[in-house]
Amino acid sequence: MTSSSIEDRLAIGDLFTHYTCALDAGEVDVIVDCFTADAALVSPAVGRHVGHAAIRAFAERFARFQRNGNQLRHVISNLTMQVDGETAHATCYLTVFLTKDGKSNLMAPGRYDCDLRKVDGAWKFQNRVVLHDHDYKLEGL
Amino acid sequence: MTSSSIEDRLAIGDLFTHYTCALDAGEVDVIVDCFTADAALVSPAVGRHVGHAAIRAFAERFARFQRNGNQLRHVISNLTMQVDGETAHATCYLTVFLTKDGKSNLMAPGRYDCDLRKVDGAWKFQNRVVLHDHDYKLEGL
Amino acid sequence: MTSSSIEDRLAIGDLFTHYTCALDAGEVDVIVDCFTADAALVSPAVGRHVGHAAIRAFAERFARFQRNGNQLRHVISNLTMQVDGETAHATCYLTVFLTKDGKSNLMAPGRYDCDLRKVDGAWKFQNRVVLHDHDYKLEGL
Repeated sequence: MTSSSIEDRLAIGDLFTHYTCALDAGEVDVIVDCFTADAALVSPAVGRHVGHAAIRAFAERFARFQRNGNQLRHVISNLTMQVDGETAHATCYLTVFLTKDGKSNLMAPGRYDCDLRKVDGAWKFQNRVVLHDHDYKLEGL
Repeated sequence: MTSSSIEDRLAIGDLFTHYTCALDAGEVDVIVDCFTADAALVSPAVGRHVGHAAIRAFAERFARFQRNGNQLRHVISNLTMQVDGETAHATCYLTVFLTKDGKSNLMAPGRYDCDLRKVDGAWKFQNRVVLHDHDYKLEGL
Repeated sequence: MTSSSIEDRLAIGDLFTHYTCALDAGEVDVIVDCFTADAALVSPAVGRHVGHAAIRAFAERFARFQRNGNQLRHVISNLTMQVDGETAHATCYLTVFLTKDGKSNLMAPGRYDCDLRKVDGAWKFQNRVVLHDHDYKLEGL
């Protein structure tokens, strides 16, 4: 493993962390910036969103949800990846917790399955699929 | 820390991730390949299994369990390790979630305590102990 | 990214892991050694503790709690950091599980927000703030 491939691994791990933390904190610009301009974000819970404008609308829904007193935590773990030059494939586990009115609940375990691309030296999501182990709805999202 | 020791750390982290993901996905060959030929896998929930044939039988039980509609997620975190040449000791936290019939439950928190050995350049589990914070049974395993 | 900055990242990740594992195992000396001599540890659940003597008293409460049959797991994830020479800022998610009398419960999701300082080549917590998504009490702590 070269030092540069170690750097790629750390940068891809950071992307997953920045994305999930921004989603939970309602930071719309950070969320949009995690994706390539033509990226697709696919989730059974919230549909399919292609391109920055659609992803921004998706992010704004989560930001409103958070401002309305719903604190999500997209906990990620078990990250694994294959890097091939300027593209990569990465998966991780996702365990979503929601806190509202002083109570926390596990939403559903699941996983992310992602294609990534390096754009001007920065890793971005090209295709991001969310797979939950059972269906669920976020009331008020 | 040398670049080679960084590589060891990442490779050992990958081994934990590949093992748990393969266990949850029912990938028998991947599971067996995570262990040395004379490895021991010890779990209060599922007994003691020594050598590749016994570990394969163990893996096949999990694969059947998964095909029968039980989706486990062995979420790992808090990984720490000491590497000493071609051997290592590593521990991590384990939080097991089970989804069945559209419902997810936390099984038990706990931890893995593992001895590892490098075989032909690849890290493998030599001795893998699972410790749960309380007993539990996986119905139908 | 230089090899030295990779080393800093791994060392800071280790500090978080060593701290949480020591807290759950009741290892008082390890806990104290994670902090600078003038460090502050702030938590809505357990108050504000400044300096090694106060942090030792805090750690001893957790050690007693554990000896009395309460097994905590401070599960950490989503770690992100900015390193600037000999100081750093790092945050991570925290999901606390408590097992007692054969039952496990999620206490609360939340996050750590930490300032760190390198002292004689070793990263330590300078200021460590715990933020929970809802209030909770650990009975018997």
